[in-house]
Amino acid sequence: MSLSAEAIAQTAKAAFEASQLVSAAERTRALLEIRKELEANKDAILKANGEDMARAEAEAAAGRLASPLVKRLDLRTGEKWDTMLQGVTDIASLPDPTGTITYARALHDNLDLYRVSCPIGVLLVIFEARPEVIVNIAALALKSGNAAILKGGKESARTAAELARTIQSALARTALPEAFIQTVETRAEVTALLSQDQYIDLVIPRGSNALVREIQHSTRIAVMGHADGLCAIYLDESADREKAKRVVVDAKIDYPAACNAVETLLVHQSLLETIWPDVADALLVANVKLLCDEPSLTALTASSSSPTNRPIATLIKTHVFPAAPEAYKTEHLSLTLAVRTVPSLAAAIAHINEHGSHHTDCIVTESAVAGSTFVRGVDSAGVFVNASTRFADGFRYGFGAEVGISTGRIHARGPVGLEGLMTYKYVLKSQGEGGHIVGEFGREPGKKLYTHQPIEAELTF
Amino acid sequence: MSLSAEAIAQTAKAAFEASQLVSAAERTRALLEIRKELEANKDAILKANGEDMARAEAEAAAGRLASPLVKRLDLRTGEKWDTMLQGVTDIASLPDPTGTITYARALHDNLDLYRVSCPIGVLLVIFEARPEVIVNIAALALKSGNAAILKGGKESARTAAELARTIQSALARTALPEAFIQTVETRAEVTALLSQDQYIDLVIPRGSNALVREIQHSTRIAVMGHADGLCAIYLDESADREKAKRVVVDAKIDYPAACNAVETLLVHQSLLETIWPDVADALLVANVKLLCDEPSLTALTASSSSPTNRPIATLIKTHVFPAAPEAYKTEHLSLTLAVRTVPSLAAAIAHINEHGSHHTDCIVTESAVAGSTFVRGVDSAGVFVNASTRFADGFRYGFGAEVGISTGRIHARGPVGLEGLMTYKYVLKSQGEGGHIVGEFGREPGKKLYTHQPIEAELTF
Repeated sequence: MSLSAEAIAQTAKAAFEASQLVSAAERTRALLEIRKELEANKDAILKANGEDMARAEAEAAAGRLASPLVKRLDLRTGEKWDTMLQGVTDIASLPDPTGTITYARALHDNLDLYRVSCPIGVLLVIFEARPEVIVNIAALALKSGNAAILKGGKESARTAAELARTIQSALARTALPEAFIQTVETRAEVTALLSQDQYIDLVIPRGSNALVREIQHSTRIAVMGHADGLCAIYLDESADREKAKRVVVDAKIDYPAACNAVETLLVHQSLLETIWPDVADALLVANVKLLCDEPSLTALTASSSSPTNRPIATLIKTHVFPAAPEAYKTEHLSLTLAVRTVPSLAAAIAHINEHGSHHTDCIVTESAVAGSTFVRGVDSAGVFVNASTRFADGFRYGFGAEVGISTGRIHARGPVGLEGLMTYKYVLKSQGEGGHIVGEFGREPGKKLYTHQPIEAELTF
Repeated sequence: MSLSAEAIAQTAKAAFEASQLVSAAERTRALLEIRKELEANKDAILKANGEDMARAEAEAAAGRLASPLVKRLDLRTGEKWDTMLQGVTDIASLPDPTGTITYARALHDNLDLYRVSCPIGVLLVIFEARPEVIVNIAALALKSGNAAILKGGKESARTAAELARTIQSALARTALPEAFIQTVETRAEVTALLSQDQYIDLVIPRGSNALVREIQHSTRIAVMGHADGLCAIYLDESADREKAKRVVVDAKIDYPAACNAVETLLVHQSLLETIWPDVADALLVANVKLLCDEPSLTALTASSSSPTNRPIATLIKTHVFPAAPEAYKTEHLSLTLAVRTVPSLAAAIAHINEHGSHHTDCIVTESAVAGSTFVRGVDSAGVFVNASTRFADGFRYGFGAEVGISTGRIHARGPVGLEGLMTYKYVLKSQGEGGHIVGEFGREPGKKLYTHQPIEAELTF
């Protein structure tokens, strides 16, 4: 018997509210119970995973599913199973993100105000393919105190169902409501859940640009995540040759399908005959296809006909093409890079703000002033100086866990860790005689004045 | 010649981007220029205000406009003009909310990550009636570095136009683009602007519940604010009689039309014959109408027939009525209070989470455990112990300025000051030889490991 979307959402909210009196220690214990239960159910889970794999392989053989997707389903080979278990332990050992006091003031004698971090409420998380994400998200939700409704990809349905059952049995041994983590299986359920803004507080889509954009356009609930990752690197007038080569090549080839891979290279015009041919060499040798504007293309052609016998000479015909205007608006997600010549730092900043996706952008420069101007002027979640855009990642930033990367400016921006799953509440405690009332405050004689003294945060919450 | 909504929004975004290189000091100077220009234009502004007033008075006389609204338009009497000017100076003197570092880690030697506060982008602020709000919001936008598009009430159109012209002339004497603050005059423009999610980052409606709800339902842009303010006070088993009386009466009568006035009183059943009649007395004497559930009503009737001759005896017929179920879902905004008896603290928490608007709720108790349970269990922006709900206010909290009060859980919650108008960006600075690339990091021998050492925040931004 399956519940209606409204019942699922309402149950999740009730579970969230009931969980407010459960301690953080108990939530952490629930994570360890989940790990234990996963170990106990390993055979059943991997058997289900085998069935998903067999079906996916048949679909792939029939040309109805892309092969890389099949590989992403696999929980049985390599270190994937152990990594999944380790992830649960890692999240369990992170500091408790609830109860952190971020503002504390005495409004007057015996009247203390605290701003305390607390979970947001009910999360709806939608993802594709990789079945271990269900465990990862359940762990993040438990650690942060948010109830969650999870929907995985249909290709991993059997594995996901087995994982969900495992999580439920583990939760049954804790003080948390079992409905704290729920899963749904169909696209129709997700569509219905997206209209439950009365109960669901945040939607986190993790998947293709198309998935994210569709969800952003079909709900009134706040959506956290990113569609495009259109990152740029600007080679400033004062760029160092080696830094330019290393940073651009790494940002492009380290993992071209990632959202933080570079898609656009902006080259200051003064570098066309100096650094640019070297950077292009390094990219071409790494099998990168270059879509160039007219000046950068001309510079390469000129350079390739020089007697120094650059690799360019042989690769230019197969790997270098004129850029169409769309090239600068396209997330290639492959070994393709759009190149554009700019007359100034200001033009680079303007290009990025207009064409980019406000994800992560980088300047290669030896000038502190140019670096600082770029950092201020570029309106993106990440603004880097002489470092690869690939550093934009919650683990690399030191968050210990990553929910996703947000290109929104509201709530959380950039890589999102547990902190991004928190909100806060204001706690006002009166310990005065007769309680505190605003009628006693004012500018008139005999009235009290607000003191707003910073206080030591000592609230046990 | 008036611009299209798209052109207005696009111009605002361009002004925002251009302003990123303008210093905070220059933005503060702009505030002082605005104050100067307001003083210089005082006569013209107050003349326009007189015209708005005359028209509004005629509308009111014809029964087409509520009289309190006419009063709210007035900039000419009392201290309103001076208060408006002082508000600009006060906001100018607040600390700069931009450039605050909230996370700083060395990812490795010479690779430093900073999370730095910065403005969100373009705000669309919609408000009603009081024309001085335009100056207040313009000042908040300038201080926080956000570009703003403002729309006031049609009743104050002449005053608003004059104030907007004044702000523009002041901005023309600064390094900021004049389009940093724009105003629009028609409802149709607002409707068109609500679909400009490409350029507008945050909508802040300040006005009636109907206005806020309509806007929340007609845009994909994030909306910050609140519709209902359905605040409750719970009198716990261990409540102190005097605290109960003082806090409840203040929360109800101090300013009944405010969103933080109490609308529901929950009484623990053990208090029905002890504290409750005294609290009711105090409310009735203050001319409050009580909508009571059966037990609280019976208790009052019994109490009124006792020989102690309480004021209840005379007021009960005119001021006490049985509560319909809707009473607990209604924001009365008047001297009316819904009263319900609850069997336990848990029932009080459940009532508030289900019926309330997650704005501000209070417990009156002498028990630290009950206070802490209430604070954890009630899922509201403000959770108070023995203090009037009327304290929920940015100025009272010590923020210096208030944008509004948010009942959302995403981004900002509760009273919102300048901090609620900020987002952040991650700045990653490499000062290493050859820049930094992720390809050099990993677990393999010879690769670098992330260190994530906390560092002193020394970024000049």
